[in-house]
Amino acid sequence: MPEIRVGLIGFGTVGAGTVEALFKNRELIEDRVGAAIVLKKIADLDTETDRGIQVDSTLLTTDAMEIIDDPEIDVVLELMGGCDKAREFITMAMERGKHVVTANKALIAQHGKELFETAARCGVDIAFEASVGGGIPIIRAMREGLAANQIEAVLAILNGTSNYILTRMTQEGLSFDEALALARRLGYAEADATLDIDGSDAAHKLTIIVSLVFGHPCTYEDVYKEGIDNISPEDIRFAGEFGYCVKLLAIARQVDGQIEARLHPAFVPLDHILANVNEAYNAVYIEGDFVGPTLFYGLGAGRRPTGSAVVSDLMDIARNHIKGISRRVSPLSFARSPARELSLRPMDQVSTDYYFRFSAVDRPGVLSKISGVLGENNISIASVIQKKRGARGSVPVVMLTHEAKESDVRKSLKIIDQMDVVVEKTVLYRVERKTGI
Amino acid sequence: MPEIRVGLIGFGTVGAGTVEALFKNRELIEDRVGAAIVLKKIADLDTETDRGIQVDSTLLTTDAMEIIDDPEIDVVLELMGGCDKAREFITMAMERGKHVVTANKALIAQHGKELFETAARCGVDIAFEASVGGGIPIIRAMREGLAANQIEAVLAILNGTSNYILTRMTQEGLSFDEALALARRLGYAEADATLDIDGSDAAHKLTIIVSLVFGHPCTYEDVYKEGIDNISPEDIRFAGEFGYCVKLLAIARQVDGQIEARLHPAFVPLDHILANVNEAYNAVYIEGDFVGPTLFYGLGAGRRPTGSAVVSDLMDIARNHIKGISRRVSPLSFARSPARELSLRPMDQVSTDYYFRFSAVDRPGVLSKISGVLGENNISIASVIQKKRGARGSVPVVMLTHEAKESDVRKSLKIIDQMDVVVEKTVLYRVERKTGI
Repeated sequence: MPEIRVGLIGFGTVGAGTVEALFKNRELIEDRVGAAIVLKKIADLDTETDRGIQVDSTLLTTDAMEIIDDPEIDVVLELMGGCDKAREFITMAMERGKHVVTANKALIAQHGKELFETAARCGVDIAFEASVGGGIPIIRAMREGLAANQIEAVLAILNGTSNYILTRMTQEGLSFDEALALARRLGYAEADATLDIDGSDAAHKLTIIVSLVFGHPCTYEDVYKEGIDNISPEDIRFAGEFGYCVKLLAIARQVDGQIEARLHPAFVPLDHILANVNEAYNAVYIEGDFVGPTLFYGLGAGRRPTGSAVVSDLMDIARNHIKGISRRVSPLSFARSPARELSLRPMDQVSTDYYFRFSAVDRPGVLSKISGVLGENNISIASVIQKKRGARGSVPVVMLTHEAKESDVRKSLKIIDQMDVVVEKTVLYRVERKTGI
Repeated sequence: MPEIRVGLIGFGTVGAGTVEALFKNRELIEDRVGAAIVLKKIADLDTETDRGIQVDSTLLTTDAMEIIDDPEIDVVLELMGGCDKAREFITMAMERGKHVVTANKALIAQHGKELFETAARCGVDIAFEASVGGGIPIIRAMREGLAANQIEAVLAILNGTSNYILTRMTQEGLSFDEALALARRLGYAEADATLDIDGSDAAHKLTIIVSLVFGHPCTYEDVYKEGIDNISPEDIRFAGEFGYCVKLLAIARQVDGQIEARLHPAFVPLDHILANVNEAYNAVYIEGDFVGPTLFYGLGAGRRPTGSAVVSDLMDIARNHIKGISRRVSPLSFARSPARELSLRPMDQVSTDYYFRFSAVDRPGVLSKISGVLGENNISIASVIQKKRGARGSVPVVMLTHEAKESDVRKSLKIIDQMDVVVEKTVLYRVERKTGI
């Protein structure tokens, strides 16, 4: 039986899950691939901590170069995370003719272009299924399964921690802080959950999705990003009254030859399949011009799901290796650069429906003043709820608008927030329209 | 640019959708694959009917042999349906060194073993993504994306017509006949919807899924099958009272080294993601030992979704062709036959939870008699609803059981249905337990 030899850099959570899958399902993997996948070396600065998986101590090294410089190693798994060192190791590995599998979303989102060019120059594969959606084979779906389609829209829940927090806020009415504390206690959030909560993690993944959809590497900085730290249970309740829930949504959409790429909390209609994606689950909803609406759902993080994705990439490379080929599918699934350039639509040019919650003094004529400003800025109101007087003498006035332009919205709210009848900064959510799906 | 030449046999709905995708997205497909996919010939007995797509009349022929015998054609698309002729054409095409793409679930379910052997002997690929789940890239997910996993369970909604009918019965309380008539009127059901309703269509797809999960061709006859024609709105209402909905579910599950393969209406917990798969959508829920629970959702039929799947297979073969390889992944994703044999569990050995609706005379002690028989046969009751007297002087007694064995259930119901206090045949549904997912 042919062999493919693997070196692993980074023996943390994902590394341990990967090794566990390779060991536990060794026979199945060999039956499927028709080759033995031999783990030859594991590099980590810490070779002492127990990862809950029995590994021959002779495999362990603290020196990643022992893997990168080993001429017998065919594939390097980069599972250490971080950018600078990982980028350096991956580049050196590719330059020595090794294929690379990585789970590093930040690295691909920030340095994908350069890494893909290096891979092309060196004639090796670089695979990154684990970087988006954990165990969900979403990269493969976009690169191969849906390859016949123009992708018209992607709506995705890409951060399990945020989704867990929003689920608790929605189902139990917890505050953001309470839900975050619970998520920490149950292991759904790290001690420092900043990258989950401020949207960075999901925005990295969205960057990769946009690149895959359009065949041009998209830059992380071009993606609009808002996190979930300002979401209040009050707005979640109002969302429910209007027939929506609140999700941290990654959106990529083709509009008039441009691409919207934005990550922010959004109202999702309760009858949309994404509204039923709860707890720490991830899901990617894709609309293609032929396939129509599709959804891919599963665990977006965790040792074993991520290990599943890493090993699937490894099996893919092994299947190529046996046939003596590489680069059967290029990283972004385009054998040649698409003629059409990637043109990202600036956020202030985006049009969508909106939800506003105004905190106004309880006085006649206030709604008329507010709606006057909106009307002057081409924003028309679809429905309004006005509640009883609040604790501080102000009343929440909440409304959904018809489609409006972000720049008009920003202009209006600037004016409205300076009115003397408005006592707090207006709260804004973008709304995904009811689609009937 | 390299070329790959294609012949299409069967210019019906799926054929037209395939041609439409190849034409409309030609540039995208060429950019992705790096080769031109050239449609060289289309064979159909009917070359007159307008398929809503402009095709050069010189491409058309009534003689499939013109394609099969054309040495310039690399890939044959078999989209004619039916078994005998299709099997003959595919076999001849493979024997002439051509790869085959088919959407023919009945053919793969009934003759997969033989066709896969022929493909292996001839060194060609046979691809069938379109045969299960329409546009959903589920075969690819099982063969590649989740390849690192032992698949522990598959629960799937695989027939759009049935799901549409059940959705209308559930949401609007229609009878089966009313919902079927509506489905016909709106084009969700053919004039003869027998194969959809009696479960044959979904059972074919389940046969293919079981084969993929375990790497051995499963035989259609081995799959247990019940359709939806006996479902009553009354049971759907009771299901709702217990917190369930009714779906036509294809189930493949590993239990004690054996495999359950069954297709029947089942109670699905309302908080399960599958309970939210409505209208004509299909969905495949897969649990792997590493990936955990996943769901793949989309349109399981129709011209364009199925065309999307056929063209994705074609692009896959084209990507191999350019690299000068074939059979990179074998049809069932196993390079060598798994050591473990496929052992299907007979239906009467299956254990699951049950729902019963007894039609009993309204007399004291009836429930005690019924539950006595159940108890003697190792069936314990989880909850009971007893309603008021029905129209014919009988009362429905409905209950959910704890896990019980199918053979015990059949034995009990045989006894109960002969009791003089029981006036109609007892209705039985199998229940998927609440999973919290």
